[in-house]
Amino acid sequence: MVSASAASTSHPSELQAPINKTAHEFDKTTLDALLARRFFFAPAFEIYGGVAGLYDYGPTGSALQANILDAWRKHYIIEEDMLELDTTIMTLSDVLKTSGHVDKFADWMCKDVQTGEIFRADHLVEAVLEARLKGDKEARGVKEEAVVEEEGADKKKKKKKNVKAVAIKLEDSAVAEYENLLAQIDNYTGPELGEIIRKHNIRNPDTGNEVSEPVEFNLMFESNIGPTGQIKGYLRPETAQGHFVNFARLLEFNNGKVPFASAQIGRSFRNEIAPRQGLLRVREFTMAEIEHYVDPLDKKHARFNEVKDVLLTLLPKDVQTEGRTETTQMTVGDAVAKKIVDNETLGYFLGRTQLFLEKIGIDPKRMRCRQHMANEMAHYAADCWDFEIQSSYGWIECVGCADRSAYDLTVHSVRTKQPLRVQQRLETPVTVDKLEVTFDAKAFGMKFKKDATMIKETLLGLEKDKLQCIKDELVNGSSSVKCSDGKSYDITPDLVKIEPITVTEHVREFTPNVIEPSFGVGRILYSLLEHSYWAREQDKARGVLSLPSVVAPIKCLIVTISQDNELRAKIHEISRLMRKRGIASRVDDSSASIGKKYARNDELGTPFGCTVDFASLKNGTITLRERDSTAQLIGKIEDVIDVVDALVKGIIDWSGASQKLEAYSGVQDVEE
Amino acid sequence: MVSASAASTSHPSELQAPINKTAHEFDKTTLDALLARRFFFAPAFEIYGGVAGLYDYGPTGSALQANILDAWRKHYIIEEDMLELDTTIMTLSDVLKTSGHVDKFADWMCKDVQTGEIFRADHLVEAVLEARLKGDKEARGVKEEAVVEEEGADKKKKKKKNVKAVAIKLEDSAVAEYENLLAQIDNYTGPELGEIIRKHNIRNPDTGNEVSEPVEFNLMFESNIGPTGQIKGYLRPETAQGHFVNFARLLEFNNGKVPFASAQIGRSFRNEIAPRQGLLRVREFTMAEIEHYVDPLDKKHARFNEVKDVLLTLLPKDVQTEGRTETTQMTVGDAVAKKIVDNETLGYFLGRTQLFLEKIGIDPKRMRCRQHMANEMAHYAADCWDFEIQSSYGWIECVGCADRSAYDLTVHSVRTKQPLRVQQRLETPVTVDKLEVTFDAKAFGMKFKKDATMIKETLLGLEKDKLQCIKDELVNGSSSVKCSDGKSYDITPDLVKIEPITVTEHVREFTPNVIEPSFGVGRILYSLLEHSYWAREQDKARGVLSLPSVVAPIKCLIVTISQDNELRAKIHEISRLMRKRGIASRVDDSSASIGKKYARNDELGTPFGCTVDFASLKNGTITLRERDSTAQLIGKIEDVIDVVDALVKGIIDWSGASQKLEAYSGVQDVEE
Repeated sequence: MVSASAASTSHPSELQAPINKTAHEFDKTTLDALLARRFFFAPAFEIYGGVAGLYDYGPTGSALQANILDAWRKHYIIEEDMLELDTTIMTLSDVLKTSGHVDKFADWMCKDVQTGEIFRADHLVEAVLEARLKGDKEARGVKEEAVVEEEGADKKKKKKKNVKAVAIKLEDSAVAEYENLLAQIDNYTGPELGEIIRKHNIRNPDTGNEVSEPVEFNLMFESNIGPTGQIKGYLRPETAQGHFVNFARLLEFNNGKVPFASAQIGRSFRNEIAPRQGLLRVREFTMAEIEHYVDPLDKKHARFNEVKDVLLTLLPKDVQTEGRTETTQMTVGDAVAKKIVDNETLGYFLGRTQLFLEKIGIDPKRMRCRQHMANEMAHYAADCWDFEIQSSYGWIECVGCADRSAYDLTVHSVRTKQPLRVQQRLETPVTVDKLEVTFDAKAFGMKFKKDATMIKETLLGLEKDKLQCIKDELVNGSSSVKCSDGKSYDITPDLVKIEPITVTEHVREFTPNVIEPSFGVGRILYSLLEHSYWAREQDKARGVLSLPSVVAPIKCLIVTISQDNELRAKIHEISRLMRKRGIASRVDDSSASIGKKYARNDELGTPFGCTVDFASLKNGTITLRERDSTAQLIGKIEDVIDVVDALVKGIIDWSGASQKLEAYSGVQDVEE
Repeated sequence: MVSASAASTSHPSELQAPINKTAHEFDKTTLDALLARRFFFAPAFEIYGGVAGLYDYGPTGSALQANILDAWRKHYIIEEDMLELDTTIMTLSDVLKTSGHVDKFADWMCKDVQTGEIFRADHLVEAVLEARLKGDKEARGVKEEAVVEEEGADKKKKKKKNVKAVAIKLEDSAVAEYENLLAQIDNYTGPELGEIIRKHNIRNPDTGNEVSEPVEFNLMFESNIGPTGQIKGYLRPETAQGHFVNFARLLEFNNGKVPFASAQIGRSFRNEIAPRQGLLRVREFTMAEIEHYVDPLDKKHARFNEVKDVLLTLLPKDVQTEGRTETTQMTVGDAVAKKIVDNETLGYFLGRTQLFLEKIGIDPKRMRCRQHMANEMAHYAADCWDFEIQSSYGWIECVGCADRSAYDLTVHSVRTKQPLRVQQRLETPVTVDKLEVTFDAKAFGMKFKKDATMIKETLLGLEKDKLQCIKDELVNGSSSVKCSDGKSYDITPDLVKIEPITVTEHVREFTPNVIEPSFGVGRILYSLLEHSYWAREQDKARGVLSLPSVVAPIKCLIVTISQDNELRAKIHEISRLMRKRGIASRVDDSSASIGKKYARNDELGTPFGCTVDFASLKNGTITLRERDSTAQLIGKIEDVIDVVDALVKGIIDWSGASQKLEAYSGVQDVEE
């Protein structure tokens, strides 16, 4: 039976329009305002004026980040029994000297000679030349904006300082030269950038002043450990070195066997010269890094089959070196079979990462795997792919998947004289052809004095192919050895002999190779926010963050239709029941209208909302609202909580929920 | 039917002895060896020789820490809807200047004048005087070790450098003087310590050399932000300031209402002068901090009733100032009613913290709440209690619960001129008696020039009682104002008038007070390891960590009795089932004996173990072992997994499990 009074105790459903997430063009200003208003993040020490490149996460941003990290931990660490680590941020300078960071982790900067304003040299050259090219096109009346974007959007857009183009026509030869310079901008050394700056009269675009010669600026924050000031430390620029220095203990923990992986989530620091672009280029950030140790002769992966059909969007290096950016869709299996991706383990992590990013809500159409070009890759790396995610800042590297070969473990082992190697008992002994190095101890010592030991150890530690080269050179009279002090030492056949020998080995010893997937959590988080954001068709100001419930800061909103005391008591009861089930819910018992409360939670990305009305008291029912569609269902309190639990756990989706609960029309029967 | 062949396919149960956790005296050396062997933690950059006070957590330590933090997050943040934050570690120096850390966060150190060895001045005095007293007792033939321990164990033990006592008798007056000095060791300033050092000829005990005058050493790590070197930053020494500078946004997020709390888990840094004692005094550590904002006129707590019966072990300040250390057991309710604990909110957090520490496995008998003595407490604090946990290092502060009053918000507000205050609309307007400050603008400006505005704002910002003092002094001709630059400025009645007025207010505005529970996670973790450790009665070398399953790194071990392929396949199947249920399990399919595998997992603190034997293949049964008792149950695979799930979630305990599964005797029926 339907009675008028009963109907009036229920609440009206919202005006439902079909979901149209692209009704309004993306508007970064409105998104930024939403993110500030709902305190996802804000400049650190804002009340003190802030400092570029440092951001604090508020309650929503922290929860979103915690949920992303929780999903990451389950997807990688738990699923694959990785060995988690938590190592120090403050790092002894020796460690980072060995890894190469003290000498090479630097950018080139130059200064406005009058004002002292500081620029990253490559960014300055890029911005000025691009502006000149743009001005040239304007002067020629060519409307080539789209093409410029297509070519430039990849790496250019993410860095450039905004320089106003002035319509001045250039010589044809200058246009060609500028375009050539820009295409190779990542390849220049500091002195080369200095030459370009002088040759092309590149100045501070704001003041017109000259800029100084580029000087190297190390991006690590430096500090001193202890009261004497004698122990130098740096804030780590990555968590990876913390894994490598613990390799011996990790290997022992894993019973001496590879493959295995260590994983770490933690803060890292880079003292950027001129950070811009919000969360995308910051001085302090959370990383999640995996170091997977494999036998260099066997980079197969036991679970490769599970990901072989995962579809990747690839931008291989040869396409890029031809100056093109079009991508290819290909399965992980094919990419490895065709040797586009170097090996199974690297392919496995590309597939797993594709799945992870999709799971947390990154739009697969705005995600690609870009391979590093030869000149871009670290000299020791065997292959490297970046997951780039597209946002309003262009295509940004968010995850790097690199095969670091044996580089890190080797350099730390050489420097510390600790054997960071795996010993593998061979089922059947093998005979191996080796090169044996012998020394004329006395002559050698006389010649090299205090350096003798270092040179000896370096020679004894060389791989066979390197030794063969030296042997070949010695036949011609002399060779040289490069040691860890950076110097080369000449050796001659009277000092060192290298002879082939055959030995029987019962144990194989090797330095594992490292495959490293490395995640920039803040970059992923920000990209996700852009991908999730849209505005309701009827009102551009009504923003929605369509975050998947696995990462949404709050899973369920609980509200009443009025401030009635009995209803308010009911929502706190429901809140307790949800908490018991481990569902992150939030009561809103403010005096705002129900429409305002829904709108607020759309902005927070809360996927579900339970509403208590007077029918709840009579029938024990509540309604359940879905964020994106604003559709509503109704059911008994316990049933609704069961459904929310299943929705949040991903056991059912909304259409599954619709089969378990009744549709709600805004008017309901109340049994008297 | 029992058949011999069937019986032989099962595995023997372990020799069960009744659990006797105190059969062996606590042995720190064996525990340390276990913690290193099982990679709970290790010195950071160990292969580079390490640096004092920096530690890395391995897989077990990381998991234990993650589980403690997860329990903490649920117990506090989720349960009480706290607003979580994640703020930067790198902190602008201005922020820490305002908070007082730049000027006051320092220890006094002195140097061996010959070798340069560095000492914390108070620790040196303490160690040398204690050694002299001990030598005196030896010389007098007094066996008073126990008494010394009783008096000294509280704070002395945690700091002192180990100084060998030499049996030399002292004058009676010297004994009295030394004892008096030691009782007040925390009260001395640097110059006073210098005087004591000179008067009592305190030298470096290792070299016999004199030591220098104590100088202040700030404990914050310093660095520069950006390439100019002009922005000074410090690594935060606590997370708290990151909360306070975000207060305005947090308040807005909470719809402008108090009480509410912000919470943050994160790394902090203190550049200790001479860190010792493993994880207890380190230079980099994880903290978990809550800042609970309350109305200063209403420090009641809505959920106080839920904790009023929780029993605390209290060591109030008046007992300590009498030189005694005996504790009193009292409920939270009584402690607040008797005004031993200042207010309900502080009492609430003491109760909640007691429950938290018990939940994760801290022995309640080795835990106490010690109140800060008047001279020990920060000048602004209203009341402060430390949860101290006893370990082999003595009683160590692990959680501080302080009422910080309005201090932090006030100083940041004054410095930044941002109103960090709550506005509360009054139901009925009130008339308030106030003191109005007026200035002779011209004369005031003439006299103070550029400082005039600062002095004016300081006066206008003063509380009523302070203003009343100044008013009273002005009547007598002059007064002074202390400003944020640390200087005092004289004012006279011709410049400033302070008059009582009566105003009607519709809005009450106030700066909230802050109650801060602050957790040192590493200290809690280490104490927990000591409290959990014991060795089996039959073998001192067989260590066990009786970690509660809520924090145990791995919840369930899965093993087979042999290397049979079918059995090995079975454990991986069980592992998958457990993973699906979210149970952190670990397969051990190494070739070690089953006894070795159990022993290894006892050391890891794994509470449960499932064993697969040939009966598993025939009957679909597995056995379930409980770590502490080594008791075993048997049941169908699905039933055992259900039981493990319920055990891990804390829904049932082992006796509950024993009702759901059959006892296992090592011989079982196999239906043919």
